Parts: sequence; structure tokens; C-alpha cells
Amino acid sequence: MISAQAQLDRTPTGISGLDEVMMGGLPSGRTTLVTGTSGSGKTVVAMEFLAHGIAEFGEPGVFVTFEESAPVIRACLLEFGFPIEEWEREGRWEFLEVPTDLTDSVEVVGRYDFGALVARIQRVVERTHAKRLVIDSLGALFATLPDKRYVRVELVRIAQALARMGVTAMMTSERREEYDGISLHGVEEFVLDNVLVLRNVLDEERRRRTVEVVKFRGAPHHTGEWLFTIDPRRGVTVLPLAFMS
Amino acid sequence: MISAQAQLDRTPTGISGLDEVMMGGLPSGRTTLVTGTSGSGKTVVAMEFLAHGIAEFGEPGVFVTFEESAPVIRACLLEFGFPIEEWEREGRWEFLEVPTDLTDSVEVVGRYDFGALVARIQRVVERTHAKRLVIDSLGALFATLPDKRYVRVELVRIAQALARMGVTAMMTSERREEYDGISLHGVEEFVLDNVLVLRNVLDEERRRRTVEVVKFRGAPHHTGEWLFTIDPRRGVTVLPLAFMS
Amino acid sequence: MISAQAQLDRTPTGISGLDEVMMGGLPSGRTTLVTGTSGSGKTVVAMEFLAHGIAEFGEPGVFVTFEESAPVIRACLLEFGFPIEEWEREGRWEFLEVPTDLTDSVEVVGRYDFGALVARIQRVVERTHAKRLVIDSLGALFATLPDKRYVRVELVRIAQALARMGVTAMMTSERREEYDGISLHGVEEFVLDNVLVLRNVLDEERRRRTVEVVKFRGAPHHTGEWLFTIDPRRGVTVLPLAFMS
Amino acid sequence: MISAQAQLDRTPTGISGLDEVMMGGLPSGRTTLVTGTSGSGKTVVAMEFLAHGIAEFGEPGVFVTFEESAPVIRACLLEFGFPIEEWEREGRWEFLEVPTDLTDSVEVVGRYDFGALVARIQRVVERTHAKRLVIDSLGALFATLPDKRYVRVELVRIAQALARMGVTAMMTSERREEYDGISLHGVEEFVLDNVLVLRNVLDEERRRRTVEVVKFRGAPHHTGEWLFTIDPRRGVTVLPLAFMS
Amino acid sequence: MISAQAQLDRTPTGISGLDEVMMGGLPSGRTTLVTGTSGSGKTVVAMEFLAHGIAEFGEPGVFVTFEESAPVIRACLLEFGFPIEEWEREGRWEFLEVPTDLTDSVEVVGRYDFGALVARIQRVVERTHAKRLVIDSLGALFATLPDKRYVRVELVRIAQALARMGVTAMMTSERREEYDGISLHGVEEFVLDNVLVLRNVLDEERRRRTVEVVKFRGAPHHTGEWLFTIDPRRGVTVLPLAFMS
Amino acid sequence: MISAQAQLDRTPTGISGLDEVMMGGLPSGRTTLVTGTSGSGKTVVAMEFLAHGIAEFGEPGVFVTFEESAPVIRACLLEFGFPIEEWEREGRWEFLEVPTDLTDSVEVVGRYDFGALVARIQRVVERTHAKRLVIDSLGALFATLPDKRYVRVELVRIAQALARMGVTAMMTSERREEYDGISLHGVEEFVLDNVLVLRNVLDEERRRRTVEVVKFRGAPHHTGEWLFTIDPRRGVTVLPLAFMS
Ligand SMILES: Nc1ncnc2c1ncn2[C@@H]1O[C@H](COP(=O)(O)OP(=O)(O)O)[C@@H](O)[C@H]1O
Ligand SMILES: Nc1ncnc2c1ncn2[C@@H]1O[C@H](COP(=O)(O)OP(=O)(O)O)[C@@H](O)[C@H]1O
Ligand SMILES: Nc1ncnc2c1ncn2[C@@H]1O[C@H](COP(=O)(O)OP(=O)(O)O)[C@@H](O)[C@H]1O
Ligand SMILES: Nc1ncnc2c1ncn2[C@@H]1O[C@H](COP(=O)(O)OP(=O)(O)O)[C@@H](O)[C@H]1O
Ligand SMILES: Nc1ncnc2c1ncn2[C@@H]1O[C@H](COP(=O)(O)OP(=O)(O)O)[C@@H](O)[C@H]1O
Ligand SMILES: Nc1ncnc2c1ncn2[C@@H]1O[C@H](COP(=O)(O)OP(=O)(O)O)[C@@H](O)[C@H]1O
Ligand SMILES: [Mg+2]
Ligand SMILES: [Mg+2]
Ligand SMILES: [Mg+2]
Ligand SMILES: [Mg+2]
Ligand SMILES: [Mg+2]
Ligand SMILES: [Mg+2]
Repeated sequence: MISAQAQLDRTPTGISGLDEVMMGGLPSGRTTLVTGTSGSGKTVVAMEFLAHGIAEFGEPGVFVTFEESAPVIRACLLEFGFPIEEWEREGRWEFLEVPTDLTDSVEVVGRYDFGALVARIQRVVERTHAKRLVIDSLGALFATLPDKRYVRVELVRIAQALARMGVTAMMTSERREEYDGISLHGVEEFVLDNVLVLRNVLDEERRRRTVEVVKFRGAPHHTGEWLFTIDPRRGVTVLPLAFMS
Repeated sequence: MISAQAQLDRTPTGISGLDEVMMGGLPSGRTTLVTGTSGSGKTVVAMEFLAHGIAEFGEPGVFVTFEESAPVIRACLLEFGFPIEEWEREGRWEFLEVPTDLTDSVEVVGRYDFGALVARIQRVVERTHAKRLVIDSLGALFATLPDKRYVRVELVRIAQALARMGVTAMMTSERREEYDGISLHGVEEFVLDNVLVLRNVLDEERRRRTVEVVKFRGAPHHTGEWLFTIDPRRGVTVLPLAFMS
Repeated sequence: MISAQAQLDRTPTGISGLDEVMMGGLPSGRTTLVTGTSGSGKTVVAMEFLAHGIAEFGEPGVFVTFEESAPVIRACLLEFGFPIEEWEREGRWEFLEVPTDLTDSVEVVGRYDFGALVARIQRVVERTHAKRLVIDSLGALFATLPDKRYVRVELVRIAQALARMGVTAMMTSERREEYDGISLHGVEEFVLDNVLVLRNVLDEERRRRTVEVVKFRGAPHHTGEWLFTIDPRRGVTVLPLAFMS
Repeated sequence: MISAQAQLDRTPTGISGLDEVMMGGLPSGRTTLVTGTSGSGKTVVAMEFLAHGIAEFGEPGVFVTFEESAPVIRACLLEFGFPIEEWEREGRWEFLEVPTDLTDSVEVVGRYDFGALVARIQRVVERTHAKRLVIDSLGALFATLPDKRYVRVELVRIAQALARMGVTAMMTSERREEYDGISLHGVEEFVLDNVLVLRNVLDEERRRRTVEVVKFRGAPHHTGEWLFTIDPRRGVTVLPLAFMS
Repeated sequence: MISAQAQLDRTPTGISGLDEVMMGGLPSGRTTLVTGTSGSGKTVVAMEFLAHGIAEFGEPGVFVTFEESAPVIRACLLEFGFPIEEWEREGRWEFLEVPTDLTDSVEVVGRYDFGALVARIQRVVERTHAKRLVIDSLGALFATLPDKRYVRVELVRIAQALARMGVTAMMTSERREEYDGISLHGVEEFVLDNVLVLRNVLDEERRRRTVEVVKFRGAPHHTGEWLFTIDPRRGVTVLPLAFMS
Repeated sequence: MISAQAQLDRTPTGISGLDEVMMGGLPSGRTTLVTGTSGSGKTVVAMEFLAHGIAEFGEPGVFVTFEESAPVIRACLLEFGFPIEEWEREGRWEFLEVPTDLTDSVEVVGRYDFGALVARIQRVVERTHAKRLVIDSLGALFATLPDKRYVRVELVRIAQALARMGVTAMMTSERREEYDGISLHGVEEFVLDNVLVLRNVLDEERRRRTVEVVKFRGAPHHTGEWLFTIDPRRGVTVLPLAFMS
């Protein structure tokens, strides 16, 4: 018997077709890893997840970003027709722009402590009453961590802290190959309970984009790869036709 | 001549079809490695092994977990219809949640000592009279071990300690590729006497799950890959039809 | 709805056929990575981007180069029929030749500081009123950086500084394989928002050159690989016929 | 002209079919490497080599083991119908169980000295008048050797010491892949004069076991791969039919 | 418009067929990398480049060599019918034999300085009025450089110094694979402006030799692979027939 | 014109068929690398080269060996019908057995000096008036060299010393893969002027042995792979029939 509560425990992304593939949405109150190669659509999917949250579900969102990419994301949202500047003014969307050197300043005896970062995230989440949160990307976050052994431990800590804040989160991570199943630091897929893979496959000089739920712990979902497109006007659309075959 | 005692020396997992593949169950009183990529079903198989032990064989179980995954496992068990909270109250199932930093605190002259962890496990096993035990996962356990040469030695020690406690154990370990035959630390399959491999193969955009007994020392078993499914209601089912062909 | 401003926000390269593939040109005021194997045409594409900027759009340009390659680039521009020496005299094209040891001299406590380089670039940009800028190549720039962890951080800093100067930039980076998707330092494609890949594929003893927009953040573009040629007289031509199929 | 003495210089394993593949047996008084992936049958082949030596040729044997695997080997021998406990009581089979930390205690100025281990082996060989000896496995033996450069030197020393003791020996070593031809420490196949490879190949979801003599220095043998099975009752059988085709 | 001067700016190798592939010869006054696996013909091509320079164009040449290979090269030239000893006596060909330890003696604070080597080369070039120069090979030159980060910088320096001396140069570098596109130190192809690849492909137990211009910066050339042979009498011949298809 | 002297400058191995492939034999007075995987036949080819030298050409030989393999080589020669013990008594064949620790004792400031070894070789060569010499193998020789950068330099030095002694030499080196073209230390094929590759290819469960001249500097030879067999009576035979097709 499946507990009713478990099945309702989902946060729809609002991205056309994607919630159907996930059988309802992201696991609420947990973190989902969105992983893929450069240009596979991670940032676009993550920003749409927050944007639909505000536009369709009235849930405020926080976008944690590194390497000064907020202006580009803002421009992209405008292109897709989202009133991002209005939302920012109303306090419904907040960018938390983490300077690439923050992590340096809090080094502690041979390893890093992301406690300061977590505290800043928490203040923003509380102020905005955010229900959705994005960290884009883990590659940038851990870039300067001197000892890669701590990626695993720190990733768990951050995910736990987000769970305590009650947000449904997406973290993006970078892959070098479409099909080798491993992100930049080699453990991201193992640590996080839920994993979406975006692929941008080159097939006879044409590109084909697919999304796949590789791991959803304790949550039913469709398996295998589903085609999607990124349209200059409507953004991401996972193809509903693919369900029929 | 096969000694009768040897053939009886099995602990059925209770997972539909899996005991038939293993010709009776896991080798009793020993440790079996369950290895696979992210999302291949290791945690689900491990939790069902404990759950069926309680529900069908009256054997209490201990689930050693890291990286705060107990709540997710609890939710998953509920979805599969197991009264995990009741079992926890009755002392028939116990989660031993190991903080990711435990291992740090017991560092000894250039290497780690898992003695403190083993002592904690033993206390819980004695208190619960557990017959089954899961350690999920070796990747998390050894994540911060500074010198990987000691993985092999420590793994043997822990497996020996479990043998002395008399439990039948599953340890999970993580792989990066479906078919390269090697876990995260490179020696797990060599050290442990019994190895189950779970695979989640992508075949023309569809996924196919298989389980294989790769090593069962001193124990007959079926060879090759067997299809299995994870159903939102019934959990893992190894397909009995596959035996006929 | 796509904001009109977003669509106009492009800087045409003037390279025949390439602007059509990019649906207008490079994202203005941002940096685009041009990556490919040795001999794939990165330097030729980059120099033509600047040359057409001057010849057709009246925009001055700065070419930052390492390893004393300015004379060769000058000779190549002459071959393609561009009056490079005239432009240099008129202050419309400036080479900023960075000695390979510059970076050594500004080493700071275990890492490098590219601040001095950025300051020099800024002075040249201001003096020439440059609208276009090329850095050729990141491989040479970061060759002697002792700690590769800082490539990511420093790359972001330089790209941000260029954005503040208001130039539309191309940075070239080197790949070892046509299809493995990763540049010399392993993070270039992740850090930069826009990525063009040049390929020089060996197919039954013949070479085929292709260009592909792999990532254009927030900007519509054609996908997949497009054939191009490098002609001794006309330089780079992306084949317009390929659009029809 | 082949010297008669050379051809007789073989020690039959007694394993059905294997001596025919080797054209008589293992080179007497030397060490043969038995290498394969996890579960390929190394330990089973090694234990049968000793067991048949006692049961059919009246030659006592010593089994050097690490990581406390003696009990499992004992159980496996019982399953195959060998009276291992009786043999142990009679002093015809002796397990030399090497604690995984022995090697630590004899560390000498930056490298390891296996002299103490060799001395212990010699005492057991003399006491039992052993003619056959197994070391299972080199992976466990060298696991904690800090400087892998010494694997080669130490392996030679141990093999020489065994030769002086007059025993015919099998050493097992672990491979990660069926067909890449290299054991865990990268030199085992080069150092030892005789090499048997066991393979467990996955072919369309079925497993196929093969054995091959890859190197027998100065000794004629059949070449190529030969099928074998591991039967719960009869243990290893190399298929005689395969000789006919 | 191609400047006439640019097109004349070539130095014919005199190797039958090769100048046609390069559309005139090597870029004059610059360095060309000749890269290939062991036995692919690098040394033969390099020595013929110098020999034809003397025999057909009256240009003296310097052959910089390491690892005492001058006698073998002399013998090979004699076999091809070149009066090397006569040329050496007349001062038209000079071997500069660099002892493999030279580089050791000029180590400077954690890196190497090839200044002494460059000075020696310059003296020989001035004395012989050499117009052509060969360095065979970069693998030997950089073998003992302790920090591989400096290969790139040093290679640039040496190539610049040669350019200032006014010689047309060939440097050879070693590859491990025919088609992976990368030399021993991983940057040779990126640093040098002109790259010739020699291949010796094994095709069904037969060898096929090919030459390809992979990069000629600012210089037209034929693309793709061209067959060549090494004849005991006539040395290297690139097949002219291959042009017609 | 090929100088007559050059063509005569060969030392026939006496191995049936091999001298035809090499068009006369090994380059006299130089070193040839014999490289291959474990069991590919390197030691057999090397010992036959010396044995035929004594039996058919009256040339004494020295066999430098490591890791105490002399007894095995002696036994193998006896099997092939060579009176090795008689030759040793007569001083026509000498084994120089290098203890695996010799190299340790002569360590000099952070690198190794093989001068002592070379001096010992020279004394034996002078005493025996050897014309042929084997070093089997480079893997064993360089096993304990702490800094692999010196393999290249030391290999050159040893080859030069052998050239000064006037012997025609074979050195064996070990490969991990049949077709990747690279020996254990990664530079052997680049340093030595002459390279023979032995292969033992697994083709549908059967083995096929081939020999190929990959590099013979300044010396004509047949190219491609040639089949050979190792017969228990006659040793190595390269198949003459293969020349006709
Ligand atoms: N309640 C459920 N309903 C359907 N599928 C589930 C359920 N729980 C888990 N799964 C499936 O099982 C997969 C494997 O989960 P898990 O055992 O956590 O993988 P692993 O531990 O190997 O990383 C999940 O990705 C999901 O596809
Ligand atoms: N009693 C038995 N009955 C059937 N199969 C067995 C028995 N004992 C061992 N095996 C088989 O032999 C395989 C190889 O075992 P083992 O020799 O321990 O492998 P290795 O030492 O190469 O890792 C086991 O995985 C199992 O499949
Ligand atoms: N406004 C847009 N119109 C069309 N395509 C777009 C738009 N924005 C982004 N894209 C496409 O989405 C791709 C993925 O972008 P992004 O999410 O930044 O990739 P990632 O974060 O995975 O590196 C871009 O390369 C581009 O092809
Ligand atoms: N007397 C012999 N009879 C038959 N085959 C032999 C004999 N001696 C050696 N061989 C074969 O030659 C192979 C190669 O031996 P060896 O030269 O020692 O290999 P390598 O030195 O390349 O590792 C042996 O594995 C065996 O197959
Ligand atoms: N003037 C020219 N005529 C013809 N081909 C040219 C000319 N200049 C460059 N090329 C071609 O362009 C290729 C790429 O050059 P380049 O841009 O320097 O490569 P990269 O910078 O990617 O290493 C050259 O190898 C050559 O084939
Ligand atoms: N005199 C010759 N006759 C025939 N072939 C030769 C002669 N000299 C060299 N070769 C061939 O040329 C090959 C390449 O030699 P070399 O230029 O030394 O290779 P590389 O420098 O690339 O390692 C030799 O292996 C041989 O096959
Ligand atoms: Mg992104
Ligand atoms: Mg899990
Ligand atoms: Mg370039
Ligand atoms: Mg074993
Ligand atoms: Mg050469
Ligand atoms: Mg050998």
C-alpha cells in the first residue's frame, strides 16, 4: 500500500511535460541533482523551476549563483517572458550571488567550512519565505576546495541544511560526457537522493536533447530518456507525444 | 558430496525471485556486497532485505546509514507498505545513523580506526538481537579516509567483526559504470566473499534493471544477469519467467 | 514574449554564414569561448572576427596574444587581404603581446593574480575605444599557473572585467580530441556562457571542418554541426547550403 | 632434442581437464600465477590444487591466506566433498593465516621486508613436508605496502624463497577487466614465469568461464581459451570436449 | 587578395611529393613540428629536409641531436646516397650533439633554462650560415625537465630564438597513438604554428604510411592524409598519384 | 646509392624466418628493443639469438638477467636442444645475474647510476669476447628507479656503452596491451633505434603469435606483422610461407 501522503509529497516544476515524467514533480522538501554537459540546459531548467513556482504556484524562490552569472540569467528569463525584475522588486525572487572567493575566507585547518554560506542562504530564505531554491552550480561552489575528499561531506551538510529550511531544491552539476554517469567531483550522484540527467547528444551532426530520472529515492517515476526542446519563446518543453509509444 | 549443513546455511532475503537466483538466499553469518551505479536499487534491495527479515522471518535488523538518509529510507519503506515506525518502536528495526564526521574524531597516527564504529554497531546488535544488518554505503563510510590503502584492511576488519556478531550482512558500494566491475575504492569486490551486482542499463533510451551473483564463495547459485523491476507498491521483483528460457 | 532588446543584443562576426548559424552574431558585451583541436581554425576565426569588425562595422579591436604569435597572425591577415598594418597605424587594431613570463612576476602567495594583465588590457581598450577583443589562447595564459584549481576563478574574473569594459570577446581554448567536449584545463566550457566548437574531423583520410554552437546562454541559435572551409583568399566560410536540408 | 627430465618436471593439479591443457601439470618446484577478476574462480582452483595433491598424490599442502578467509575456504572444501578437517588434524593441510597487519610491524626504512613472513612459511613447509603451496592473494599481501615500486622486488624474493623450499606454488592475483592482461599491481604477470588466466565473460547476460595458459616458460602447453565449469558437487572441470574441435 | 610575398615565403623540403602537399614547402623562417609514433619516419624526414637543402638548394644545415644518435643518422644518410661526411668536412652540415645531461647543469630555482643550449645553437648557425635546422627530438630535449609546466614556455622561447636566427626549422616530437593527436608532453601541437603528422597505420597486418598537414598557420596547403613510402635507395616519396583522385 | 658496407652491417639471429623479415638480421653493433606482453616470447627470442650465435656463427654471448631467472632459461635452452651447460663451461655463454638490489646500493643524490652495472657487463664481455648480448628485461632493471624521468637518460647511456663494447644487443621490454605501442616506462620505443614487437593476439579464443619490425633506423626491412610459432622442439619459427602472399 502506498501512503497517500507520500504520493502528494511532490513539488511540480511547472515545466511542460517534465512533471509527467517525474509522476508529479520534484520530491518536496528535498534536493534534486540536475546534471549534464555544458549547454545541456541545466541553468535553463533550474531558472524555469523557480519562475513557474512564482508565476503558477505563488511560491517565492532563491537562486544561488556563482561566477557572476545573475545578469545573464535575468536576461534569459526576460527572453522567456518572465517579469524577473518585477519579481525581484516584490521580493518574490532573490539572487544570492556568491563571490568566487567567499569560500577562501572561511578556510578552517586544512578544510573548508560552508557554514557561513549556509547561514546567508538561510537568512535569504527566511526573508523571502522561499519554498524553492536553486544552487547553480556545484562545480563553481567546490572549485577551490583544496581537498576533494570533503566534497562528499560538505554536500551532505548543505543538503541537510536546505531540508531543515523546508525548501525544495535543485542543485546543478557538470559532466564531461553524456553517458559516463559521473559529475565533476565524482560523488554528486551518490550523495544526493534524486538525480535528473540532461543530455545533448550529437547524432550525425544533429543535436538531440533528452532528460532522464536516474534516481528518485522512494518515489515512483517514469524511466528512460525523454526528448525535450528549448524554444526561444517558451523555454523547455518535454515532449508529451513520447509518452504514447 | 555436499554437506547438508552447507546448503542450509542460507538466509533468504524474502525478495521475490532473488532467493531463487541465489539458490536459497544470502550466505548466513557472512557479508554480501551489493554494488551498482547511482539509482541501480542498492538501497531499496538492502532495506527490503531487512524488512522481509522482520515481516516474514521474525529476525530483527539494524540499518547503518550515513549522510542522514534515514528519513528518506523510512518514507520509502512506508510507500512499500512496511510499518517501519511500528517496528522501530518495538525495537525490531534500528537505524544507526553515523554522523559523517565520526570517522574524523578517531584518527590515529596517519590512518583511521573504525573500532569505535564497530563497538557502536555491536551494542545495537546486542540490544536488538539483530540477525540481519545493512551498511549503506561503503562510499560514505570511507569518504574521508585519508589514505585509501587502508580501505582494504578496514573493510576486512569490519566484515570480521560482523561475522563474530553472527549477523548476515549486506554492504552497498558504488560503481561509476555498469560493466567495468569495480567499485569506488577499487578493492571492495576483491575483499568480500559474496558479490551481487545491480545494473540499470540504458538500451535505446529505455532502462533495463538486472541483478547478478558475481561471486558466492563456496555456495551454489545461478549465474548471468536476471531482470528485475522496482514497483511503487511491491518494491523489487526478480522476474521468475527468466528462469525458464 | 521575447524582448526586442534581447534579440538585437548581438555582435555580427561578419564571417560568411557564421552569423546565420548563431542567429545574429555573438552575444554583445559578453565572452564566447572558441574551442577546438590544434589546426581547427580558432585563431583564424578569432582574427576574422576582429578584422570584419573594423572593415564592415567600424569597431576597433584588440588582439591579446601570447607566445609571440603576433607576426604570424599579421602575415595571415595580409594573406586574407586585410590591411592590418594600416589598421595598426591608425590605432584601430592593437596587438597586446603578453610575454610568457608576465604571469610569473605577479605570483601571490601560492596562486596567481591576473590583475596586472587585466589592467593592461583595460588601458589598451580605452585607448583604442575597442568594441571587440580576442584572447588567444587560454592554454597559453594559464600554462604556468601552478595550481589548476584557480583556472576557474581567474577565468571568471577576466570575463567579468571584460564585461565591465563593454567589449564583445572571444577566448580560444585547446582540445585534445574532436568529440570529448573538454578543453585543456577541464573547466573552460563550464565557466563561460557561450561556447563555439570548431572541429577538424578525419574521415577516411579526408578532413571535414565543422562549427557548432554548443552553448549560448539566453540566446536562440541553430544547433548541430555546420560545415565550413578555410580558403587561402576568402578565409572562413560557413556553408549556407547546409541550412536548407 | 627435448630432455626427458624437462618433460617429466610437472606437478599435476588433479583438476579434471586442466592438466591436459597444461600438458602435464604445473612446472614443478616453481610458482604459477593464477589471475582473474573477482569471482573468476582463483580461490577454488587454488584450493583444489592442494586438495587433489593430498587426496590423489599424497603430497601435503600449505594454504597461505589473508583477510581471515580460512573458514570460508574450509566450508567450500567440505561442500566439494574434501575431508579438510581430517587433513588438518593429520597435519597434511595447514592454513597459514596472515593477519592483515603483520606487514605493518616489519616496516624497514621506507619499505617493507617480507622476511618474517617467508620465515614463517618455511617453518610450516618444513613441519608439514609440504610439496604444494598456495598464496591467496597477492592483492591482500601487498595492500598496505606503501611504495608500489617494491612489489616487483618483493614478489621475486618470495618466489625465490619458495623455489628454495622445493614447493610447487600457486599465487593468485586480482584483475579488474577480463581482457586487459594486467593484475592489480601492474607487474605480477611480468615477474612470474608461469601465468594462468581465469575469465568469467558476460555474453548476452550469460556467463562463460574460461582458463588460458598465457605464459609457461620453457614448458609446452596448449594455447587459447578453454571452457570450464564450477559444479557444486565436483568443483572445477575443464571441458575435455573442447580439445576435439 | 593574397600578397605575393606570402606565397613565396616557403622553403621546399626537396622531398618528392611533400612540397606539393604543402603547396610549396615549409613556412620559411618558422618552425614546423613533425610528430609521429616510433618508427613513423620523423628522423628520416628531418634528415632529408637538411640533405636536400644542401644538395639542391645550396643551403647549409644544422642537425641538433640528443642521445648520441648522430652516427646512426650519418649511416642512414650514406644509405640514401648523400655524401654526409664530405658535407661535414666542408662545413655545410653540422651535427650539434647535445649530451643528455647538459640540461641538468643549468637548472635554475625549480625550473630549467635552455639559454645555454640556444646560445650554442646560435654559434653553430652563425658559423655554418645555416638556413635549415632540425631539433630531433623534443622528447629527448625535455626528458629530464622536472616541472612539465615549463615545456610550453621553453618551447616558445626556443622557437622564437630560431626565428631570430632566420632558419627554417623542423622539430620532431613523439606520439604514443596514431590518431589521438597529442605528443609526449601534451602541448607541442598547440605551441607551434605548423604541424605535420606522420602515421604508420597497421591495417590487417600490413603497414600504411601517411603524412598530413594538420596546421599551417597563414599558409595554404592540401588537407587530409597522403600515402608515402620509405625506400632503401630513394628515401621518402609522397605518392603523387594520390593527388588525382 | 646504398653503400655496400651498410647492407652487410647485419648480425643474423639464426632464428628461422626472422632474418628474412629483417632483411639480413639485427643491425650489427647496435641495440634492438624486443617488446611484447607477458608470454609473447621475448625471452625465448632473446635466448635463441644468443644460442644460434654460438652454435652457427661461433660468436660468444652474454645474457644479463634479473629476478633470478637464469635457471629457467637454462632449462628452456635444454628443452630446445642447446648444450647450454657445455657452453657455460667453455666460457662461450655467460649469465650475468644482477641481484634485484644492486641498483639500490649505488644510488646517487636523488637518482640512480648504472655505471657499476655497465662496468660489470664490460668485464664479462671482455672475458668472453662476446659479440652478442641480451638484457632481459628493462622492466626489471628500472623497477626500483625512484624517478622515472631518468629511464630515458639511463637507457641511452647503457645502449651507448654497449655500442662501445662492440656487441650486437637485444633488450626486452614489457607491454600491457598488444596494440597500444608503448612499453612499461613509456619511452623505450623512442630511445632505441631498432624495435621488434612480438604479439600474442587472442582471436576468438585462439592465440596467434606475430612479429613486426616497427623501427629499424637506416636499415631496409619487411614491414607488417609476420606469423610465428614456438615449438617445444624447434623453438621459434617465423613462417616463410607468409612471404609469398
Ligand atoms: N517507491 C518507489 N516507487 C518506484 N520506484 C522506486 C521507489 N523507490 C525507489 N524506486 C526506484 O528505485 C531506484 C533506486 O533507488 P536506490 O535503491 O536509492 O538506488 P541506489 O541506492 O542504488 O542509488 C530509484 O531511483 C527509483 O527509480
Ligand atoms: N560450492 C560451490 N558451488 C558452486 N559454485 C561455487 C562453489 N564455490 C564457488 N563457486 C563458484 O566459484 C566462484 C569463484 O569463486 P572464487 O574462487 O572465490 O573466486 P575468486 O577467488 O576468483 O574471486 C564463485 O563465485 C561461485 O560462483
Ligand atoms: N532564449 C533561448 N532561446 C533558445 N535557446 C536557448 C535560450 N536560452 C538558452 N537556450 C539554449 O539552452 C542551452 C542550455 O543553456 P544552459 O541552461 O545555460 O546550459 P547549462 O547550464 O547546462 O550549461 C543553450 O546553450 C541554448 O542552446
Ligand atoms: N619449451 C617450450 N615449448 C613450448 N612452448 C614454449 C617453450 N618455452 C616457451 N614456450 C612458449 O613461449 C612463451 C613465451 O615465453 P617467454 O619468452 O618467456 O615470454 P616473455 O619473455 O615474452 O614473457 C611461453 O609462454 C610458452 O608459451
Ligand atoms: N592563409 C591560409 N590559407 C589556407 N588555409 C589557411 C590559411 N591560414 C590558415 N589556414 C588553415 O587554417 C588552419 C587553422 O589555423 P589556426 O586558426 O591557426 O588553428 P588553431 O588556432 O585552431 O590551432 C590552418 O592549419 C590552415 O589549414
Ligand atoms: N635505409 C632505409 N631503408 C629502408 N627503410 C628505412 C631506412 N631508414 C629508415 N627506414 C625506415 O624508416 C623508419 C622510420 O625511421 P625513423 O625516421 O628513425 O623513425 P622515427 O624517427 O619516427 O622514430 C624505419 O623504421 C624504417 O622502417
Ligand atoms: Mg549552467
Ligand atoms: Mg543508495
Ligand atoms: Mg591558434
Ligand atoms: Mg579469491
Ligand atoms: Mg626519430
Ligand atoms: Mg621474459
